[in-house]
Amino acid sequence: MHLLDPLFRWPALDDIFSDRIRVQRMLDFEAGLARAEAHAGVIPSEAAVVIGKKCRAGLIDFSSLAQSAGSSGNLAIPLIKQLTALVSQDSSDAARYIHWGATSQDAIDTGLVLQLREALALIGTELGRLSHFTAELVSKYRSTPLVARTWMQHALPTTFGFKAAGWLDSLNRHRVRLLTIRRQILVLQFGGAVGTLAALDGRGLDVAQALAKELQLPLPEIPWHSHRDRIVEVAAAQGILTGTLAKIARDISLHAQTELAELSEPAAIGRGSSSTMPHKRNPVTSAVILSAATRIPALVSTMFSAMVQEDERGLGGWHAEWETLPEIVQLSGGALHHLTEIFPDLEIDSHKMRDNLDLTKGLIFTEAVSMALAEKIGLPQAHQLLSAASNQARSANAHLRDVLAQDPRVTKHLNAADLDRLFDPQQYLGVANLFIDRVLFQHQASIPKDPGESE
Amino acid sequence: MHLLDPLFRWPALDDIFSDRIRVQRMLDFEAGLARAEAHAGVIPSEAAVVIGKKCRAGLIDFSSLAQSAGSSGNLAIPLIKQLTALVSQDSSDAARYIHWGATSQDAIDTGLVLQLREALALIGTELGRLSHFTAELVSKYRSTPLVARTWMQHALPTTFGFKAAGWLDSLNRHRVRLLTIRRQILVLQFGGAVGTLAALDGRGLDVAQALAKELQLPLPEIPWHSHRDRIVEVAAAQGILTGTLAKIARDISLHAQTELAELSEPAAIGRGSSSTMPHKRNPVTSAVILSAATRIPALVSTMFSAMVQEDERGLGGWHAEWETLPEIVQLSGGALHHLTEIFPDLEIDSHKMRDNLDLTKGLIFTEAVSMALAEKIGLPQAHQLLSAASNQARSANAHLRDVLAQDPRVTKHLNAADLDRLFDPQQYLGVANLFIDRVLFQHQASIPKDPGESE
Amino acid sequence: MHLLDPLFRWPALDDIFSDRIRVQRMLDFEAGLARAEAHAGVIPSEAAVVIGKKCRAGLIDFSSLAQSAGSSGNLAIPLIKQLTALVSQDSSDAARYIHWGATSQDAIDTGLVLQLREALALIGTELGRLSHFTAELVSKYRSTPLVARTWMQHALPTTFGFKAAGWLDSLNRHRVRLLTIRRQILVLQFGGAVGTLAALDGRGLDVAQALAKELQLPLPEIPWHSHRDRIVEVAAAQGILTGTLAKIARDISLHAQTELAELSEPAAIGRGSSSTMPHKRNPVTSAVILSAATRIPALVSTMFSAMVQEDERGLGGWHAEWETLPEIVQLSGGALHHLTEIFPDLEIDSHKMRDNLDLTKGLIFTEAVSMALAEKIGLPQAHQLLSAASNQARSANAHLRDVLAQDPRVTKHLNAADLDRLFDPQQYLGVANLFIDRVLFQHQASIPKDPGESE
Amino acid sequence: MHLLDPLFRWPALDDIFSDRIRVQRMLDFEAGLARAEAHAGVIPSEAAVVIGKKCRAGLIDFSSLAQSAGSSGNLAIPLIKQLTALVSQDSSDAARYIHWGATSQDAIDTGLVLQLREALALIGTELGRLSHFTAELVSKYRSTPLVARTWMQHALPTTFGFKAAGWLDSLNRHRVRLLTIRRQILVLQFGGAVGTLAALDGRGLDVAQALAKELQLPLPEIPWHSHRDRIVEVAAAQGILTGTLAKIARDISLHAQTELAELSEPAAIGRGSSSTMPHKRNPVTSAVILSAATRIPALVSTMFSAMVQEDERGLGGWHAEWETLPEIVQLSGGALHHLTEIFPDLEIDSHKMRDNLDLTKGLIFTEAVSMALAEKIGLPQAHQLLSAASNQARSANAHLRDVLAQDPRVTKHLNAADLDRLFDPQQYLGVANLFIDRVLFQHQASIPKDPGESE
Repeated sequence: MHLLDPLFRWPALDDIFSDRIRVQRMLDFEAGLARAEAHAGVIPSEAAVVIGKKCRAGLIDFSSLAQSAGSSGNLAIPLIKQLTALVSQDSSDAARYIHWGATSQDAIDTGLVLQLREALALIGTELGRLSHFTAELVSKYRSTPLVARTWMQHALPTTFGFKAAGWLDSLNRHRVRLLTIRRQILVLQFGGAVGTLAALDGRGLDVAQALAKELQLPLPEIPWHSHRDRIVEVAAAQGILTGTLAKIARDISLHAQTELAELSEPAAIGRGSSSTMPHKRNPVTSAVILSAATRIPALVSTMFSAMVQEDERGLGGWHAEWETLPEIVQLSGGALHHLTEIFPDLEIDSHKMRDNLDLTKGLIFTEAVSMALAEKIGLPQAHQLLSAASNQARSANAHLRDVLAQDPRVTKHLNAADLDRLFDPQQYLGVANLFIDRVLFQHQASIPKDPGESE
Repeated sequence: MHLLDPLFRWPALDDIFSDRIRVQRMLDFEAGLARAEAHAGVIPSEAAVVIGKKCRAGLIDFSSLAQSAGSSGNLAIPLIKQLTALVSQDSSDAARYIHWGATSQDAIDTGLVLQLREALALIGTELGRLSHFTAELVSKYRSTPLVARTWMQHALPTTFGFKAAGWLDSLNRHRVRLLTIRRQILVLQFGGAVGTLAALDGRGLDVAQALAKELQLPLPEIPWHSHRDRIVEVAAAQGILTGTLAKIARDISLHAQTELAELSEPAAIGRGSSSTMPHKRNPVTSAVILSAATRIPALVSTMFSAMVQEDERGLGGWHAEWETLPEIVQLSGGALHHLTEIFPDLEIDSHKMRDNLDLTKGLIFTEAVSMALAEKIGLPQAHQLLSAASNQARSANAHLRDVLAQDPRVTKHLNAADLDRLFDPQQYLGVANLFIDRVLFQHQASIPKDPGESE
Repeated sequence: MHLLDPLFRWPALDDIFSDRIRVQRMLDFEAGLARAEAHAGVIPSEAAVVIGKKCRAGLIDFSSLAQSAGSSGNLAIPLIKQLTALVSQDSSDAARYIHWGATSQDAIDTGLVLQLREALALIGTELGRLSHFTAELVSKYRSTPLVARTWMQHALPTTFGFKAAGWLDSLNRHRVRLLTIRRQILVLQFGGAVGTLAALDGRGLDVAQALAKELQLPLPEIPWHSHRDRIVEVAAAQGILTGTLAKIARDISLHAQTELAELSEPAAIGRGSSSTMPHKRNPVTSAVILSAATRIPALVSTMFSAMVQEDERGLGGWHAEWETLPEIVQLSGGALHHLTEIFPDLEIDSHKMRDNLDLTKGLIFTEAVSMALAEKIGLPQAHQLLSAASNQARSANAHLRDVLAQDPRVTKHLNAADLDRLFDPQQYLGVANLFIDRVLFQHQASIPKDPGESE
Repeated sequence: MHLLDPLFRWPALDDIFSDRIRVQRMLDFEAGLARAEAHAGVIPSEAAVVIGKKCRAGLIDFSSLAQSAGSSGNLAIPLIKQLTALVSQDSSDAARYIHWGATSQDAIDTGLVLQLREALALIGTELGRLSHFTAELVSKYRSTPLVARTWMQHALPTTFGFKAAGWLDSLNRHRVRLLTIRRQILVLQFGGAVGTLAALDGRGLDVAQALAKELQLPLPEIPWHSHRDRIVEVAAAQGILTGTLAKIARDISLHAQTELAELSEPAAIGRGSSSTMPHKRNPVTSAVILSAATRIPALVSTMFSAMVQEDERGLGGWHAEWETLPEIVQLSGGALHHLTEIFPDLEIDSHKMRDNLDLTKGLIFTEAVSMALAEKIGLPQAHQLLSAASNQARSANAHLRDVLAQDPRVTKHLNAADLDRLFDPQQYLGVANLFIDRVLFQHQASIPKDPGESE
């Protein structure tokens, strides 16, 4: 564990992408391969048994592995050497059949796919939790007035539930996206040195099918050593997810500003003290997520750039993926996890939301009045009238309603009751509730039947 | 047209993203909105007719529009002003109802979606053409021997058709991906100032449904002003496509090197002369595609970064999309188009491919021999023996077959006929043909029934 | 002009990077080359005169140039063909000597350097203006109290002048950086096909020196066709500048929020109305600059990626620069220009700044009190006491001063006068004024003697 | 150490950026601060002594530190807590004065600057070594013929020394750039909570000056908490350096292709075997460097994006730097180190270089002949003649010289001896030697007087 891991990452995911598990998943490939080849009659069954026994990360000398990877250029070569030595202790005959017909990239890529399978399952579950908490916010605050802001300026009334419904709607799409991605990328990599499985004579496809079954990974049409679109799509999906999380975090941090004070990250969780200012309560989770959103777009672009891989297996592009893709999954997963952790305990101040609605002394109702007048005097004329009235109210520090109530061009069409209604935030929410219902319905529909969103 | 457009872009796409069409699609929104509101009884039918007549880009003063956009911060505000003036000429009554209840972003986003609908249809068709040409290469050259290269070094034999099948397999996935994307992003944007359609009282959803029908765009669950995942997914998909195109272009440019001379871009097309060296024939199309692949990953990352949009409508993030997304679609579409144009005329030199296979004097068959010996003496031992024999052959500038034929550890297990077979590239292709069949089958399956891959 | 140019760009820079000027600067290279070669006795003087006369962009058929660039892969080849035809009209003898001994990249790169020379001079001047306006803010508001915010939460008192001094300090560094960059990148590109000037026999260096003199560009040690660090350094410097501008814009947009209302973009400039909300005044310039800062980091990364250029002249990397570097300079220059335009007219509300200081009812003075107590009871103890008192004040909605005045652990060490002093923002500014003086001094020192910051 | 560190990184740099040293440098700040404050009379001298004794990373509980950083949002807060506990064991009086008047960011940023000071010194030395080895290549191979390649096609003759001189010229600039950067970024960060050093009353500047002296870091004009241009400039410089290293690695990997075989990475170093193909010798170092160049541009863009930090200290942007900047320095430093390690042992095959020159049967001399003829018949005419002759030679598989020797339009102006000279690579090197001399001179001039390139 690095010092900053608890801040930026998620222990459950960290484990999946640890060196130990990385090596274990490559060994899972080697054990599965031996079993598959025994099944296909390519190697002796006894060999597969012995090999299988030694495919345990706990038996590997990691320090020596790292040093040798430095000169061989990948982890598989020295790992297979160590595995061969381990198996030889029990059976020199079995040792002959390790990694039979495979290439380094088969072990490394399939190992990665196995890691991603676990990681995306976790992320799916967490995304489900976050969606659930968000749906609760939507329901609970669907009628809680809040000022909507555009360009970081007060615009019109909305409700906090409607705002949260916008968040939820994105999360609903991310769940669908994740299921698609999981179906698409979770495939076997197995092609031998150049993808033809030449070293297995004509029995390559039989072995490949048996191996796919062993590892419960679909068999792709053809090996994909230098064709990386599947892998990159995972990166892109995590990048898009992070964008949504950061949009929410940006909203939270804006609402949490001292002057607005409409929302704050939970205090209970103990986050956010200052080394020098005893009164501070910093929105640490928002900072972590915004930080992830500053880093991940660039990391995803690396995955795109790395796609230009030469010939049957490339030079440098593949290497560039090795640390980048895990980093993307860990940082985005960390952001997801930390946001989910605070979501049910967000502190929401409906009173402050209501108070802030009044800050502009009615200016946020210009559109309402403008539309009401437009039916009588035309939209451009109404727009211009309200624009002037707004300036007048601002200069005089008066309430817009009072300014309008003294303007005969207004009172000719709108009486006091009309104005009262037009300046009531609850009366100017359009079809917010209908939109909320649609999003909640979609949320219900997107909950997978089986637990854990798994497949 | 800019000077570099014909080099980097595709005229058909350039048109879709021209200023003129950008404005026309926004006007299509305004006209559709008027009709939808008339249909819903929100504005008079006559108004919709008059408004519809004036929604033509040809009536707009573009220079004035550009200047006003500079101060208003978007194109919609001054466009609506001009439209209002135009409509007022015919009917001051109709002019009242322009843009009724909508916000700038409704017009701008929906206009963009309409542009994307056309652009992605074109791209789908072109992708179909490129897949078709690639499938032809696969079939034609499925048995043409070629040396496979890994880490930019000779590895084993393969065939050119097998290599092309790897390209085709990615293109098959891109076609599926494109269909998914088109379904997902082609939705209406219509929410009014803050997404609630407040200005339309309770009739917002009726109008929205009518408008969706008018523009033949599905209605989303809720407006998505500051939730940009759909739009970003288009960018990401185009980025992944470009990675595949550039992988192919990198392969072409490597094969086209003077020393390899296995492949070259068509000469007929007149591309690639030099200002000073009369003999040069430069692979211009590869350069263009590799250039696109250098630029697009970063442009896509901008789209990810831009997702962090504040509150109901953000500050700067949305603006960052306006030029970036069209640029991504144009550059990736340009790369796709230029590659498709040269593909049927690629000059392929099978003889040179065959000659190059022999360059290493048999070294590319070390794996074949190694696997044959491994069954007798074990894989590690065989690997070591062949490694030493390779060095010996290299030092003596001898053919590996001759070196091995003099090694009793080899001849004990392999006779002359065995060696002949082991050094025959046609004999060491594994299940290449089976993989090719799988890819071709998938290619057939992925061809949409209806023409133009449209929907 | 494109529709969005007035919003995002600066007309003065747009002109420099227009197609017309791009071509003119390449022609300036060709004219200069002819004169230099005449001077070195390599070509006849008469030829140089005729060539020089025809090196005018106005004579070029741009549409044909664009089409031909599409097939030749660069602009220089078809441009030289057109130039040759033009010169041939006057003198077939002179036409022989056009582009003598040069390669396309010599004309294109040197043309770009000439464009950058003009652009960076403009940017230097504008940076000087912005620094000047910022220095005025520093001086004028050096004692205007403002709450400092960290993690988007109230922290301690500061002054608006001190905040502006932080901005100015960065701008001071950018001016120095710009001078360094200009010295470094403004060099000639001239090497012939592969950098050796082989086509000029042994006279290449003489011609190069004469050409450098003609164009008033230093001669580099060796041609730099595929070594792009100079060019990339310009991109990086503009990227860093944009980061500073966007930091300022982010500050402005935060201060301008409805609840804070401490600062606003000038209204007079007419920017920032809304299509539907008459009261809105959107911070358009901030949006434009934040948009630039969302786009430029990625564009700069493209320049870094493009550095990996093959051999003597590369494939794709160089092409990737052609539109990217101008885009970087135009967008960053546009951001600089638009910020400079609004800076002298920023509307600053000192009263609101003062009012906001009091919003937390004294909490922003916890550090002040804590330090005062720390000398008596230790820093950790004081920190803890103030943390508890802050919570108490928050819960009771009381002023912190009142809470402390009732705590004997406090009153034992601090009397009422002490507390008054500790809760006075003017008393808790540390050495803000000394820091301001240092920055202003540095600002003075960084003003170049000669006008226009031009060397 | 992670499994991939020896492959991608440089142990010497890894150490500097380890968690242990990161913490130690923060503790160095705290110890220095205590001494400076004692010197300035702000805290008791005895306190500084006790604090200094405990500022050792070995005393810190890293696991607890990591956990607490997760909730406090940075490392400084829990580190100071631990330090306080440690000091309290010896002296509760001294414990009062830890971190006196400073803020977390002061310790974290200054700690980073101290790490960078060490890292950049190492990088400077390694850059000196690489330059030295490159200069040796330039001198040794200045007359070794090599074909120059443009657009990945044979162009003209050059020499391998001239090519290496292009590499060296970039490296010379990087050394100058590094010295500039080191001067610019190595400054103290010390401002207290919001930059005013308010907690130190009026003595802030005295303490700051004493602290700068303690740590041997210049004092900046003003604290730079949310103004990150200095830090970003380090990232950008490392990014540009990586671009140059990758350009060299790309060249090496191209020259090392089986068909070209002009150059190869040293075999002795044991790098580059294959798990399945005994004959393979992969260019592992090139792969590592190209991988770095795929990753670093994006990481640098993150640093640019992170510059948009809010107010006095931002939310998320600063956090995004913490892992990104060290990653940039480690990956670029790793690339530099690995390239330097192989450079003196590159295997260069001059014979193969000479052989490859002849591959096109004289086509690479089209420019030479064209220029010779141009003086007689004009450049465009000569270009056209040679273009046709090239095609004829290609079709007939004949040597261009033989084709030309039979063309009366050629023989009219050039006799057999002329043609011999024109087809001699040594005769067509232009002023390559003069350019080489200029670069070598600059190389000598750029070697710093004192060892280690340290200022």
